[in-house]
Amino acid sequence: MITATYSIEPIGFVRSALTRLEDAPMQGDEGGTEAWLELTPLAAQGLTGIGAGHELILLTWLHLAQRDVLQVHPRGDLNRPLTGVFATRSPDRPNPIGLHRVSVLEVTDQKLRIAPLEAIDGTPIVDIKPVLAASASDR
Amino acid sequence: MITATYSIEPIGFVRSALTRLEDAPMQGDEGGTEAWLELTPLAAQGLTGIGAGHELILLTWLHLAQRDVLQVHPRGDLNRPLTGVFATRSPDRPNPIGLHRVSVLEVTDQKLRIAPLEAIDGTPIVDIKPVLAASASDR
Repeated sequence: MITATYSIEPIGFVRSALTRLEDAPMQGDEGGTEAWLELTPLAAQGLTGIGAGHELILLTWLHLAQRDVLQVHPRGDLNRPLTGVFATRSPDRPNPIGLHRVSVLEVTDQKLRIAPLEAIDGTPIVDIKPVLAASASDR
Repeated sequence: MITATYSIEPIGFVRSALTRLEDAPMQGDEGGTEAWLELTPLAAQGLTGIGAGHELILLTWLHLAQRDVLQVHPRGDLNRPLTGVFATRSPDRPNPIGLHRVSVLEVTDQKLRIAPLEAIDGTPIVDIKPVLAASASDR
């Protein structure tokens, strides 16, 4: 099997009052907060057309995750049986990409103010996509 | 701004009858086909708990995409104004991760048969996540 790897270059970083992993909720809709997405000057050219009120899917790199974990107890609950990480939303997984459905509150030159987000301050941003019209509740 | 990069190691590859980019539809629900997701032996340990009928979000690496593109005419339609790639689902973008909502048709040791998928044969697989119960139409 081919073993090429691919390099992710962050397009920016999350700026949030959430600074500690232990304070972060498990999902944005479980206590996520407002946050700023601060893009690099180059990547900011890709924001044209995004405005307040838009619904986006934010992809992050969960840089504190453990990449060698393949099975977990869902939501850390030891009463639940060991489950493959691909059947869970555990941040620990081989390629720890976070998927977050967010609303845009404000747009400046290089920044988006969004909510709700459970990712902590400093989390690298991988990509931003619009929610497709056909799917009202992407995330 | 920090300039760390992160390395994606594919957990497997798409096996599909779609072999040419020009035959691939733009979205899975616009003519996507059945396909197999063939995982590496190691990553296959993460499939435990996934069964036929489950709804998944598949993340791929769109390896043929152009990574230096920041603005496009949506859906290649020159009548539509240049738009930031983060406001579109263009495969051309700095970190070309594809997001696909799929249904599981069949599960074997290391493979999942899924549909519908617009990604071509050989596309690297980055991650697989369950659709969260609260969101009926993720993709």
